[in-house]
Amino acid sequence: MSSVTEIQEHSTSSRDGRLTAVGDSSDGKPRWSNQSFDFTLPEDLRRVFPDYRTPDGVSAYLYAKEQGIQYPNYSQWKMEPYVEKTGFQDKGALSNPEKSALLRAAKEVIHLTPYCGTEIVGLKLTELSDEQKNDLARLAAERGVVVFRGQDDLFIREQIKFTSYFGEPHIHQQSGIIPDLPWSHIVYKDETSLNGLRSQVWHSDVPYELNSAGLTTMRFDLLPQAENGDFIGGDTLFANGYLIYEALDPQFRAWLETLKAKSSGLGQAAVAARLDMETRRPAFETEHPIVRTNPVTGLKSLYVAENFTTEIVGLEKRLSKSILDYLFDHIRRCLQFQCRIKWSLNDVAVWDNRSHFHTGIFDYFPKTRHGTRVIAQAERPYLAENSKLYSEVKFQGYSTT
Amino acid sequence: MSSVTEIQEHSTSSRDGRLTAVGDSSDGKPRWSNQSFDFTLPEDLRRVFPDYRTPDGVSAYLYAKEQGIQYPNYSQWKMEPYVEKTGFQDKGALSNPEKSALLRAAKEVIHLTPYCGTEIVGLKLTELSDEQKNDLARLAAERGVVVFRGQDDLFIREQIKFTSYFGEPHIHQQSGIIPDLPWSHIVYKDETSLNGLRSQVWHSDVPYELNSAGLTTMRFDLLPQAENGDFIGGDTLFANGYLIYEALDPQFRAWLETLKAKSSGLGQAAVAARLDMETRRPAFETEHPIVRTNPVTGLKSLYVAENFTTEIVGLEKRLSKSILDYLFDHIRRCLQFQCRIKWSLNDVAVWDNRSHFHTGIFDYFPKTRHGTRVIAQAERPYLAENSKLYSEVKFQGYSTT
Amino acid sequence: MSSVTEIQEHSTSSRDGRLTAVGDSSDGKPRWSNQSFDFTLPEDLRRVFPDYRTPDGVSAYLYAKEQGIQYPNYSQWKMEPYVEKTGFQDKGALSNPEKSALLRAAKEVIHLTPYCGTEIVGLKLTELSDEQKNDLARLAAERGVVVFRGQDDLFIREQIKFTSYFGEPHIHQQSGIIPDLPWSHIVYKDETSLNGLRSQVWHSDVPYELNSAGLTTMRFDLLPQAENGDFIGGDTLFANGYLIYEALDPQFRAWLETLKAKSSGLGQAAVAARLDMETRRPAFETEHPIVRTNPVTGLKSLYVAENFTTEIVGLEKRLSKSILDYLFDHIRRCLQFQCRIKWSLNDVAVWDNRSHFHTGIFDYFPKTRHGTRVIAQAERPYLAENSKLYSEVKFQGYSTT
Amino acid sequence: MSSVTEIQEHSTSSRDGRLTAVGDSSDGKPRWSNQSFDFTLPEDLRRVFPDYRTPDGVSAYLYAKEQGIQYPNYSQWKMEPYVEKTGFQDKGALSNPEKSALLRAAKEVIHLTPYCGTEIVGLKLTELSDEQKNDLARLAAERGVVVFRGQDDLFIREQIKFTSYFGEPHIHQQSGIIPDLPWSHIVYKDETSLNGLRSQVWHSDVPYELNSAGLTTMRFDLLPQAENGDFIGGDTLFANGYLIYEALDPQFRAWLETLKAKSSGLGQAAVAARLDMETRRPAFETEHPIVRTNPVTGLKSLYVAENFTTEIVGLEKRLSKSILDYLFDHIRRCLQFQCRIKWSLNDVAVWDNRSHFHTGIFDYFPKTRHGTRVIAQAERPYLAENSKLYSEVKFQGYSTT
Repeated sequence: MSSVTEIQEHSTSSRDGRLTAVGDSSDGKPRWSNQSFDFTLPEDLRRVFPDYRTPDGVSAYLYAKEQGIQYPNYSQWKMEPYVEKTGFQDKGALSNPEKSALLRAAKEVIHLTPYCGTEIVGLKLTELSDEQKNDLARLAAERGVVVFRGQDDLFIREQIKFTSYFGEPHIHQQSGIIPDLPWSHIVYKDETSLNGLRSQVWHSDVPYELNSAGLTTMRFDLLPQAENGDFIGGDTLFANGYLIYEALDPQFRAWLETLKAKSSGLGQAAVAARLDMETRRPAFETEHPIVRTNPVTGLKSLYVAENFTTEIVGLEKRLSKSILDYLFDHIRRCLQFQCRIKWSLNDVAVWDNRSHFHTGIFDYFPKTRHGTRVIAQAERPYLAENSKLYSEVKFQGYSTT
Repeated sequence: MSSVTEIQEHSTSSRDGRLTAVGDSSDGKPRWSNQSFDFTLPEDLRRVFPDYRTPDGVSAYLYAKEQGIQYPNYSQWKMEPYVEKTGFQDKGALSNPEKSALLRAAKEVIHLTPYCGTEIVGLKLTELSDEQKNDLARLAAERGVVVFRGQDDLFIREQIKFTSYFGEPHIHQQSGIIPDLPWSHIVYKDETSLNGLRSQVWHSDVPYELNSAGLTTMRFDLLPQAENGDFIGGDTLFANGYLIYEALDPQFRAWLETLKAKSSGLGQAAVAARLDMETRRPAFETEHPIVRTNPVTGLKSLYVAENFTTEIVGLEKRLSKSILDYLFDHIRRCLQFQCRIKWSLNDVAVWDNRSHFHTGIFDYFPKTRHGTRVIAQAERPYLAENSKLYSEVKFQGYSTT
Repeated sequence: MSSVTEIQEHSTSSRDGRLTAVGDSSDGKPRWSNQSFDFTLPEDLRRVFPDYRTPDGVSAYLYAKEQGIQYPNYSQWKMEPYVEKTGFQDKGALSNPEKSALLRAAKEVIHLTPYCGTEIVGLKLTELSDEQKNDLARLAAERGVVVFRGQDDLFIREQIKFTSYFGEPHIHQQSGIIPDLPWSHIVYKDETSLNGLRSQVWHSDVPYELNSAGLTTMRFDLLPQAENGDFIGGDTLFANGYLIYEALDPQFRAWLETLKAKSSGLGQAAVAARLDMETRRPAFETEHPIVRTNPVTGLKSLYVAENFTTEIVGLEKRLSKSILDYLFDHIRRCLQFQCRIKWSLNDVAVWDNRSHFHTGIFDYFPKTRHGTRVIAQAERPYLAENSKLYSEVKFQGYSTT
Repeated sequence: MSSVTEIQEHSTSSRDGRLTAVGDSSDGKPRWSNQSFDFTLPEDLRRVFPDYRTPDGVSAYLYAKEQGIQYPNYSQWKMEPYVEKTGFQDKGALSNPEKSALLRAAKEVIHLTPYCGTEIVGLKLTELSDEQKNDLARLAAERGVVVFRGQDDLFIREQIKFTSYFGEPHIHQQSGIIPDLPWSHIVYKDETSLNGLRSQVWHSDVPYELNSAGLTTMRFDLLPQAENGDFIGGDTLFANGYLIYEALDPQFRAWLETLKAKSSGLGQAAVAARLDMETRRPAFETEHPIVRTNPVTGLKSLYVAENFTTEIVGLEKRLSKSILDYLFDHIRRCLQFQCRIKWSLNDVAVWDNRSHFHTGIFDYFPKTRHGTRVIAQAERPYLAENSKLYSEVKFQGYSTT
């Protein structure tokens, strides 16, 4: 079992020079840096769209349509094979536990439910200081999701820049892309999606990757509307994975902590193949601990998802299925650790994708909803020995219970 | 299989003279009437609290505490054996399909999600005309739940009077009561409740009764608060049972329509016995159709609940459990037909308890939350042959999709 | 739903001239004939083993080993695409209900359990008259399996000839073969089989074919032995599918009779591919009624198997799995309809593979057990409207209960 | 976790003087002794049947019928409260590992299947020496069940005496009795039993007792017959619990070894109450380790049963059910560790009821089958740390694999 310390001892291997380790921080540990994020496309992709440039101030979806380009775009290009990246350190760890720089600057702080979800009123993400961003990373690790309404200037390029502060932005190995901005995943169901119910399941994003999806941002620039103009439908649910884990029996938790599960990208690749989407890298399966530690809070959370976790390593198929079905059902039943976000235009959710679950709600077909999601990649999942349960710690700077 | 017509041909048998059939309506059918609702207590209960009177303008909970009376109160008294009441006609059936009297009077009509939940802004329930109440019954049958915020004058006695317009108010056979107002069910967990999770399950209320819970009102006069004074926790979920039913496979639906399930009050009675609560009437089990017709919309909905439905009649125990577990899981998975109500003081929910599911969310312990629920009893569940699916009809007066 | 009559109205389409319809029977219906069975190999296969000939009086397994040939053999050759064969009539239908020709000739008739399994003592299968064979087909349809001990002259070629009296002998699309006798399936686990537990499951053979496996024979020429020479291990279980069906709830049976299930050869093909076995014909999936009629007894039986039935047609994946799991579990629990055959050398089991289940028992590894199975193909599964339950009929000529 | 050593250090507390500890054995440990078994009835029962005496040489069932006495008899009498008995030592531990005294005296030793069941030919149980009995206890612990055919002189009183050599004979707390011989449990379904399917489930007997059923004998004196006089129906299945345990995943086994399960007598008592049978002692529930050690072989076996094990201690209800259902299903699927005993008159099965499962097969109704079972009580279940898996040991004196 790897520990936080072990992981942090490895230096950062930057894949392409855009995100580099800077070793001169106060504690001598390598750090991710987003200073140099320059939107240089992977070479292979550059040949596909040499001149395309999504402008600011418009939905990437509407612009692509206007340009007569397939959207999301599935042009062929190849990604490099996956290699684990070490040396990640969460920005939240740089924050003070009170998160004062962020919380005191807010006009209002609204906690949506006792155990999940906080809305910060009166701040622009584009204007946050590094100190405030660090606080935000910590707050997201604590509250699961932090909502900022009406971020009308966080255009897609700004969103990528903003998110890359927290880690190298992830490029999806199958999904359709914005032609010149593959670091953004498109949250949009088109006519190939039927009704989206395949995606209506509690999960963390791309768990089959070696490095986890970490801090993640999502912003909607098109939303379904009722006849009276109200936005309606397409809410998103989030849930606290620390408490979902803690709500399991102690004897069961002790066993789960000894087990790994397989997260598979094969299912997603099979769907991609069926839809003639492009697979940029062969799909693979990864073994992760079922219970993982969040490096900022030091808390244990449950890390399985019905649409990605295919088996518990070493268990007979039927037993594995029984245990996983129990866990998936447990997640669904834990209403008391959820919150529900209703979206308005340009609202942004910032969440910690490692220790919290989320699911879309697909109640708006055939209306259109379009958003952009950017994932900052984080550490490879690990379970540290001294990890705690949610009820054993007290977060500072606010109280919801 | 009984039909709507058959049911309406029976005349109303009023149990105690307070709710009487008035035969002179335009179509000659018997009607429930609430003209004479007079708060006369069952004789047996009258002896227990001869002088107690909950005043207006105060939470029944706070008043009882102040009076030094156990709350909720479990004093002994006996209810008459249960007899089916025939002749019920839903007030919604008297409304025009446009529901104009209600919808046009509203300052604003906010639909919470496409398939469930509507908020009516700017109206007082105490001031609704009968025509508007009829519209409300229809709207509740269509939208599941209708919310009216800040009903600060719908004191508990007013709430009982208001609800009794829609049907005889129900008295629970076990639950603790407000000493002088047994027609109100108390929504409150005290120190005997642990954490309420036993109640965090999708259900319709008291389904073991012969006559269903029909239009139901719930109002909160005490809510949990965060340290900054915000109300937080204790939201309620509602779900559209028509669509939950329609989302099942057609071949499966065809079979379900031939089956009945047992709704049991024994579990609730066993809990009552364990807690030294009073059982006012021996608990019983009732067989109801699994799929029932809503008399106002004519739509079929699924009518089972994990905490009450114990078996499918005639099926081997394990098969019955397999089918029911599938249905309960299906209900939990249908996020796309749900809405979530966040409460403020004196908010009132009005819902159709026959065709829609709801569940509390118990995320606020050990804080206090207190509300009062009044149920207007309706018809005995039946499945009419000409019943329709949700997608086969179009509701009038508004559009959410 | 096709009926017996419909099926019998179609004339036999003989695939290769070896089995031909003879139309001059008393009732003018086409009949299968085995008069001309001549061991002519499919042309493609003939090129592979032009000179190989398994002699009589020796285990095909031992002979092949001696000849230095891979066994079972997986050489490449191609089978024609599958086409439904119509016009099958069961030989059992030609028998008299008393089955006197067979039963009276036997030295002894031992019924193994009340509902399954009969041993006929004192007869040689090679010496049975057509009348006795017809009786045997009927007895197999009634008792599931009929055992003849010590058939030391039913060499593999004789076994194929004998079985082909009852229908065209089946050639498996993947399994290893005896080089010159592909009409025999080899019952033998070699070093690629691990422990055989994959096959330890209640089933009927090759249910994905359009035409069912009908009367089937199995004979063992090598059996595991204990140190004292006793034969030990490798028994076979059979079970009465009529009663397994009848033991289900009437309301459930009524629904099952409206459903079809998919029998898949894909799993078997996937295993074959993984083991570099030859696939002679692309694997396919077939939809069959879940409840089928036996044309001889007119009885309904359950027709699903855990290793072949992948889904119930038209049902959502999880519901389909719930129902199938219930059925598979039900089959396993029905000990009261099973019998267990302990084998000695040259014992032969003759069974009706349509209405009865069987499973091997893999308790003898790493010892060797070798047998040969020949399947006479029968009608395509159908459910006739006037089919009966087991308890509604009384078989003639013997009594076991 | 108690160990073998701990258990053997406690001295025997004899309940009623009939079975006493004799301390002069070679190792100074207390021993059970059956020298003084004298058929003295519990005082309370003595008053009920002061003069009744079942004679030798006749079925207790036929004799009771002849005497006009209800059979099995349910007269009222009270048993003392249950107290754990310590100091048990298995007679098998006194045997030599080769079991020569027994095996060499046998005319023939037939192993029924590789992993379960041995038939000893040519010996009378009434004539076995103590040394041979000790060998038999060891053989039963190894082979699960040992069959002796045609024991026509092991009348019921002899059977009780014989079995009491191995431990104090058990008296059942609910079941009907032979009026003067309550130490024998009657294996007989009468008209109140419907079809016995409730008992067709893999189990070990009376697992809710503190002290386990140990060596057990069963003898049939009435069996169902076909019209030709053959015995048919009512076979019994046995299964090897060591291998059933070993066939589970190693990671799962490691967890199971930390868990206890509740064995309940409440279900049996509820059936008794419904049938107006007598409860001689309040029913109770006992927590036992899920994996237990056999004191003779030192092997671990699985110790749960669908009809008695109600929950895993400390696990949430649904998780507990998932795990137990998996285990029950696993037991049913393990055909490769079973054997099936077909009975003839006066056949006797001797089995180790701690480490092996058995189930009746109820395929003979409405015919009559009557047998007598006597249980020698053994140690309280424990899991010793140095316990082994079946495949890690080699039994001596014979070989079946």
